[in-house]
Amino acid sequence: GVTAILPHDGNVFQQKVPAAIELGNGFGKLAGYSQVSELGNLETPIVLTNTLNVSTAAAALVDWTLNQNGNENVRSVNPVVGETNDSYLNDIRGRHVKQTHVMEALQKATSGIVQEGNVGAGTGTVCFGWKGGIGTSSRKLPAKLGGYTLGVLVQTNFGGVLEVAGAPVGVELGKYSFKETLDKSGDGSCMIVVATDAPLDARNLKRLAKRALIGLGKTGGIMANGSGDYVIAFSTAYKIAHESTSALEEIKLLRNDDTSPLFLAAIEATEEAILNSLFAAETTKGVQGHNIEKLPIPKVLEILKKYGKVK
Amino acid sequence: GVTAILPHDGNVFQQKVPAAIELGNGFGKLAGYSQVSELGNLETPIVLTNTLNVSTAAAALVDWTLNQNGNENVRSVNPVVGETNDSYLNDIRGRHVKQTHVMEALQKATSGIVQEGNVGAGTGTVCFGWKGGIGTSSRKLPAKLGGYTLGVLVQTNFGGVLEVAGAPVGVELGKYSFKETLDKSGDGSCMIVVATDAPLDARNLKRLAKRALIGLGKTGGIMANGSGDYVIAFSTAYKIAHESTSALEEIKLLRNDDTSPLFLAAIEATEEAILNSLFAAETTKGVQGHNIEKLPIPKVLEILKKYGKVK
Amino acid sequence: GVTAILPHDGNVFQQKVPAAIELGNGFGKLAGYSQVSELGNLETPIVLTNTLNVSTAAAALVDWTLNQNGNENVRSVNPVVGETNDSYLNDIRGRHVKQTHVMEALQKATSGIVQEGNVGAGTGTVCFGWKGGIGTSSRKLPAKLGGYTLGVLVQTNFGGVLEVAGAPVGVELGKYSFKETLDKSGDGSCMIVVATDAPLDARNLKRLAKRALIGLGKTGGIMANGSGDYVIAFSTAYKIAHESTSALEEIKLLRNDDTSPLFLAAIEATEEAILNSLFAAETTKGVQGHNIEKLPIPKVLEILKKYGKVK
Amino acid sequence: GVTAILPHDGNVFQQKVPAAIELGNGFGKLAGYSQVSELGNLETPIVLTNTLNVSTAAAALVDWTLNQNGNENVRSVNPVVGETNDSYLNDIRGRHVKQTHVMEALQKATSGIVQEGNVGAGTGTVCFGWKGGIGTSSRKLPAKLGGYTLGVLVQTNFGGVLEVAGAPVGVELGKYSFKETLDKSGDGSCMIVVATDAPLDARNLKRLAKRALIGLGKTGGIMANGSGDYVIAFSTAYKIAHESTSALEEIKLLRNDDTSPLFLAAIEATEEAILNSLFAAETTKGVQGHNIEKLPIPKVLEILKKYGKVK
Repeated sequence: GVTAILPHDGNVFQQKVPAAIELGNGFGKLAGYSQVSELGNLETPIVLTNTLNVSTAAAALVDWTLNQNGNENVRSVNPVVGETNDSYLNDIRGRHVKQTHVMEALQKATSGIVQEGNVGAGTGTVCFGWKGGIGTSSRKLPAKLGGYTLGVLVQTNFGGVLEVAGAPVGVELGKYSFKETLDKSGDGSCMIVVATDAPLDARNLKRLAKRALIGLGKTGGIMANGSGDYVIAFSTAYKIAHESTSALEEIKLLRNDDTSPLFLAAIEATEEAILNSLFAAETTKGVQGHNIEKLPIPKVLEILKKYGKVK
Repeated sequence: GVTAILPHDGNVFQQKVPAAIELGNGFGKLAGYSQVSELGNLETPIVLTNTLNVSTAAAALVDWTLNQNGNENVRSVNPVVGETNDSYLNDIRGRHVKQTHVMEALQKATSGIVQEGNVGAGTGTVCFGWKGGIGTSSRKLPAKLGGYTLGVLVQTNFGGVLEVAGAPVGVELGKYSFKETLDKSGDGSCMIVVATDAPLDARNLKRLAKRALIGLGKTGGIMANGSGDYVIAFSTAYKIAHESTSALEEIKLLRNDDTSPLFLAAIEATEEAILNSLFAAETTKGVQGHNIEKLPIPKVLEILKKYGKVK
Repeated sequence: GVTAILPHDGNVFQQKVPAAIELGNGFGKLAGYSQVSELGNLETPIVLTNTLNVSTAAAALVDWTLNQNGNENVRSVNPVVGETNDSYLNDIRGRHVKQTHVMEALQKATSGIVQEGNVGAGTGTVCFGWKGGIGTSSRKLPAKLGGYTLGVLVQTNFGGVLEVAGAPVGVELGKYSFKETLDKSGDGSCMIVVATDAPLDARNLKRLAKRALIGLGKTGGIMANGSGDYVIAFSTAYKIAHESTSALEEIKLLRNDDTSPLFLAAIEATEEAILNSLFAAETTKGVQGHNIEKLPIPKVLEILKKYGKVK
Repeated sequence: GVTAILPHDGNVFQQKVPAAIELGNGFGKLAGYSQVSELGNLETPIVLTNTLNVSTAAAALVDWTLNQNGNENVRSVNPVVGETNDSYLNDIRGRHVKQTHVMEALQKATSGIVQEGNVGAGTGTVCFGWKGGIGTSSRKLPAKLGGYTLGVLVQTNFGGVLEVAGAPVGVELGKYSFKETLDKSGDGSCMIVVATDAPLDARNLKRLAKRALIGLGKTGGIMANGSGDYVIAFSTAYKIAHESTSALEEIKLLRNDDTSPLFLAAIEATEEAILNSLFAAETTKGVQGHNIEKLPIPKVLEILKKYGKVK
């Protein structure tokens, strides 16, 4: 499957957004890293898919960009594509994602509706031994801290021992995943996209992105050797014109001193988005008779009660 | 105060150890970063002190190295010194650490005994609104994973909302620190030293170091804008001779594939070391009538009971 | 066009080579950066093509890898693809590179013959205002320095004011490119591949790769804002098995102290490879009546005489 | 000796400047890297000295900052101190730089006069086998490119084979340094400070800093294993208040697209500053009967004539 995130409804190539990418563990095939890092901006939507379909998705993003009104003379495009490996459930070697699927995802993304669980790039993912998927969450800062909003979207496909709000759900349910087998089952990846309307430049967006990895850690993730954990952060507070008659751009930026509340927001929203992906996902049958159960929510609620997290 | 860590009992300059430094949030004055990164090794003990005494400690480390037997011709030393800011309790502008204090710490370090709490570089630190200090912890992997040992030492001086093994201790005790005031009280730093006998090179030590930051996050740390969170990781599995008659060195290294259990160990030991620093610290009166209470352990135990963490 | 470089004749996925990638200026679309950086190895051949064909080349590399004997169960491949933008001569928006071209390039690469000039990925490139292309060069260290060989292959497509062995050829021929127009004509990219049989690990390969950028600078390159200058370095001295029954690998590595001669070799070979690409290229007619002249070699020789470089 | 650079005449701690540090080869003891990288600013003057006096200089910079008017409550200072190793001429183990020397250098720096050659931190340095020292150079862009000025100051103490404007001076004078001996004589360091009034943020200052290394390469430097080559770049175009009543700062920044002329300026000015350091330096007798000759300028002029560089 494919999931697309549009930074805004206009022509993203002509009106880029400030952006940064943080590498948690880089065992992944993310496209677009170096240009985002060098120039501090994002010039395409972000597409998420699986490991062996990155090329197809990147080609489609290039097509989509070249064909937009106003891009008739564009000859260089930096597509940003993330991925996780869904080969347990999916016939990944078949590379079933086609250009049309990516185009559809880009079209749907414009509507602004975000579904969670077994959708798009989350269709075949596995997380902490249960069915993972797409999850989202957000935080809004109080007015006195600027009132900024921060949203997170995740594609969860990683291992570890699940913790829910500090309750040891993985241990209680005997789903040790990583610990039990001490093999590579802790491997797997998490793609994290952080969007905010706070006016951050690329440097502070990179700092923000780094905090999302703590949110991942609080759910029990360990960024195992085999994981591709990436955080793509962008701001919608201002745009960077592809071309300009002026050599200068005037921007208002949040001072370093005032970034910490956003850092906390990124941690909380990432943790919650990961949990939401698990709570929203459904049991899925895949290739070779593989089956991944959804998180047993009633049991999880029992555990949360036991650990004083719900009454 | 001053705390020193010796990678081994010999001449560390002549027999360096593989090492790496990971920057969590770099608002700090750590000495030695670039050479460790470039060469992948550590050639002095590690000294921890406070922010304004880094120079004194670095000068002492240089002295100590120049004066060791066998170092008579040494003309370049890369001292590694970390720090946190203890200015709430300590007259930091007075810079009371002298060379003799550093030399004493280096002498004591050789004995291998590590005290926790209000000792050395932990004397004046504050963590989550309570008294912080020095903390340690370790993990030993099962034999089938190599049986490696990993130890962590922390100097805790940072903010956030304390979580103990997933229980919201900060919230329950009304010690919101960061959240309550929404000001810079979340600032402050954590120095983390990770030592292992697993045969890792500098690249994998850097990956290991990064995981320690997740341990910090699990205690409630957020790597706030004002924090200097650094992880120094080294291996004792092999030594790198300062000079050699051979241009080649033959080493046995752990493969990437087998690093994940160490990553988990680093997360767990860091989390535990931070908590240990809090449990071991004592109420401390400082400058200007400032007073920082120790963690109210009986109340914390009550909370841990409430949240099912102890019986 | 497409150019492929094979680290060795075997199955590169099963027998990876130590590798590193250095970003000079990252305005480019290189595929594969993060995994090479994280794991320190290369698991596919390197393919060079143009900006908008990276996806096609990456997809082909994945195909090629999945279909090799012994890779029947491979479900994750990190294709490494570099590019420069040949849109002045080539109808780049047409994206004329197809999978078969990449496969052919991979086949031809196995024979070990390297042509220079207007071949493969160098077909449509422009360098210092003249026709660029593929260039190669190498250095062999004296036996007392280990006798190692280092080879460089470049795809030259960048601007600046050409210098040949220190002679100001660009100025003498009035080809100021960048300086004359003060516009974006200095933009453009250089892909550099450095291969050596010296036993370097990923950390020292990254250091080696960085030196190649000095070679680029000595020809007059400036790593302009619009350039994608990347150096991919790998060693053929040892292989890293994809799977192993042992958790340890035993390797002999060159000590830091003995790397400098290789650094100099990388500078020299890169400078020479860039010049070779210019001397080997032929005048080329492209799209929209565009025409790029080859370097006027007789005039260049006159200039070299004037500046005492040849007799 | 000691050399100090003041970003402006005011209180640098209260009015910081945007800054970045690029590591060429990090075998050095530079103080201040991580905080400059994290926060993107410089809050003290820059001091250059020798390897074993970094601590003394850093301590003095802290003192100097704590004692400035308006800094009565400052409890955290990030001193930036660079160094090269002058142990061939200087009794470096004696650590003869005292706090008063640093204070004097800071006082003199305010006057804006920059001397070259055997002054300050350049007193004992050796470059390409001749006497090195302090060198400076600058470039001013044409008005249509913004009219910005860029200045470079270097402390030259590195090896290689000297090239002057492309003429092989080192080879002609039989001063192969590195090549001749094939030993560590190519080691040694270069500190480079780049200042500009162009309105660049930390990200683009880091890109600018990276170009200075090409200037170093064009003089024959190779960033040998044993060198500490660092570039500290800052802009004087705007200041960053230590404290502010507003969470936002409004700044005008140069767009990425318009940075290339500054990149070229950094390359040229660095190359010229290094050469200036050599042309200005004087023959120096040092410890243990060591003697380093100044560059034989008449002979160099002959060589420049031979190679068509002067008439």
